[in-house]
Amino acid sequence: MRIFKDPLEMQRWSMEQRVCGSSIGLVPTMGYLHNGHLSLIEELQAECDLVVLSIFVNPTQFGPDEDFGKYPRDEKGDLEMCENSGVSAVFIPDVDSIYDHSASVCVVENLLSLGLCGGSRPGHFRGVCTIVAKLFNIVQPNVAIFGQKDYQQVSIINRMVIDLNFPVEIKIAPIVREIDGLAISSRNIYLSENARVQALSLSNALQQAHERFFAGVSDASELKSLMREIMHDSALDIDYVEIVNSATLAPVEMVEMGDVAMIAAFCDKIRLIDNCVM
Amino acid sequence: MRIFKDPLEMQRWSMEQRVCGSSIGLVPTMGYLHNGHLSLIEELQAECDLVVLSIFVNPTQFGPDEDFGKYPRDEKGDLEMCENSGVSAVFIPDVDSIYDHSASVCVVENLLSLGLCGGSRPGHFRGVCTIVAKLFNIVQPNVAIFGQKDYQQVSIINRMVIDLNFPVEIKIAPIVREIDGLAISSRNIYLSENARVQALSLSNALQQAHERFFAGVSDASELKSLMREIMHDSALDIDYVEIVNSATLAPVEMVEMGDVAMIAAFCDKIRLIDNCVM
Repeated sequence: MRIFKDPLEMQRWSMEQRVCGSSIGLVPTMGYLHNGHLSLIEELQAECDLVVLSIFVNPTQFGPDEDFGKYPRDEKGDLEMCENSGVSAVFIPDVDSIYDHSASVCVVENLLSLGLCGGSRPGHFRGVCTIVAKLFNIVQPNVAIFGQKDYQQVSIINRMVIDLNFPVEIKIAPIVREIDGLAISSRNIYLSENARVQALSLSNALQQAHERFFAGVSDASELKSLMREIMHDSALDIDYVEIVNSATLAPVEMVEMGDVAMIAAFCDKIRLIDNCVM
Repeated sequence: MRIFKDPLEMQRWSMEQRVCGSSIGLVPTMGYLHNGHLSLIEELQAECDLVVLSIFVNPTQFGPDEDFGKYPRDEKGDLEMCENSGVSAVFIPDVDSIYDHSASVCVVENLLSLGLCGGSRPGHFRGVCTIVAKLFNIVQPNVAIFGQKDYQQVSIINRMVIDLNFPVEIKIAPIVREIDGLAISSRNIYLSENARVQALSLSNALQQAHERFFAGVSDASELKSLMREIMHDSALDIDYVEIVNSATLAPVEMVEMGDVAMIAAFCDKIRLIDNCVM
């Protein structure tokens, strides 16, 4: 397994592989790898000659009051997991090699990013778009994979690929859950035993809204009230509860098949998100 | 010579050439080709296996009151000139195939683009960065060449290449001038006989400032006053007269070797720009 810290060396290697006819799959991560990431690696290994996994906790997608400094890191464990999973190369750059001190160019999405997580985290998706564009140019993947847990993120990246004509196919991997339903996230490590129980109400709320929808309830307000109640009963600090059109991410009034219920909440000050396609 | 209208077909061809080991040089243009463009083609032919020339009058870099609709077009003449110059492929897409009706992602530069042409033409460089990023992703060039006449544009594109890690080398071609000194531009075609004479005061002003600088005058105010006077005497409608640091594009007070004198003026309502490295 190759390990690259320098963007230029990573880029050179990738271009060499592409000229040799090898296809490259990219798994962009912020490290602290878990089973969710492993499923992404496996999915790309099935269709690409080489899988590159990037590990970069991207400062520009964290707000000033967010958990950039505290975001969990485990370089040694991550590299071991990559080695054991048959990853071809890991790209693990320093912040300084990614962001020049006089950088002034960024990639901005102006529609899908306004609400939901984008509403609560101003600048977050500008940071995401910019780092993903950079990773695409550095790693030169044929395919890149993102988890459906970050539904808004995937929608925005899809939009970016179309609007900037990146020659990259985007794959979306289903949400990986713990046995009790909690969506797997690197941030789960921070949950106290009590908060870990509370956190279940996110997936519970989604599941019950899903069931109620299939029992015939299509009024978005009713389904959202139901989810709010369930989360409120667990004393979660709700950020948003929304049901949106899967393409536009605009809130819907009458829910149809394919719309997406999306929630975000603070659980013991840890921000968790989850979603469910109706 | 290949002619591509469809971005996907252009992209597929370019990727095939790259996999075969051919290097690609890109000459991005808005068409209505002139000797300035020919010099760009020749320069890239000297170092690339294939030269792709793009012709696209990009609506997003024109303001609502600018000359997008009137910008000169001559598809037939352009294609002939490309054929005669040994261009490998021309990319000449429609606006609709470049901009999806629900496009919402753009590339933004937040520092170098604030003043000069960016100050007079809000949104212009956002349009430029976005279309150039798209062209880079579609044509996949190893090298792209831009004329020094658009000095600010080249600076911003250089910045974009660094900040978004595009694997593209940017070359800058010197300004090509008519025999009397006027910088060659597609817009010169619009100048009346009288305006054509007036327009000479742009290059005259720059040349005299240049001479005065080498005669020992380094006070920027004095040099700018000199240029303003010369242009004022020709009854030009001055947009800006500035002397800036070549890297930051920030105005300087004391002029040093390598600083850049930049001017823009309306001549018979036609906006002309020119510059000179001191």
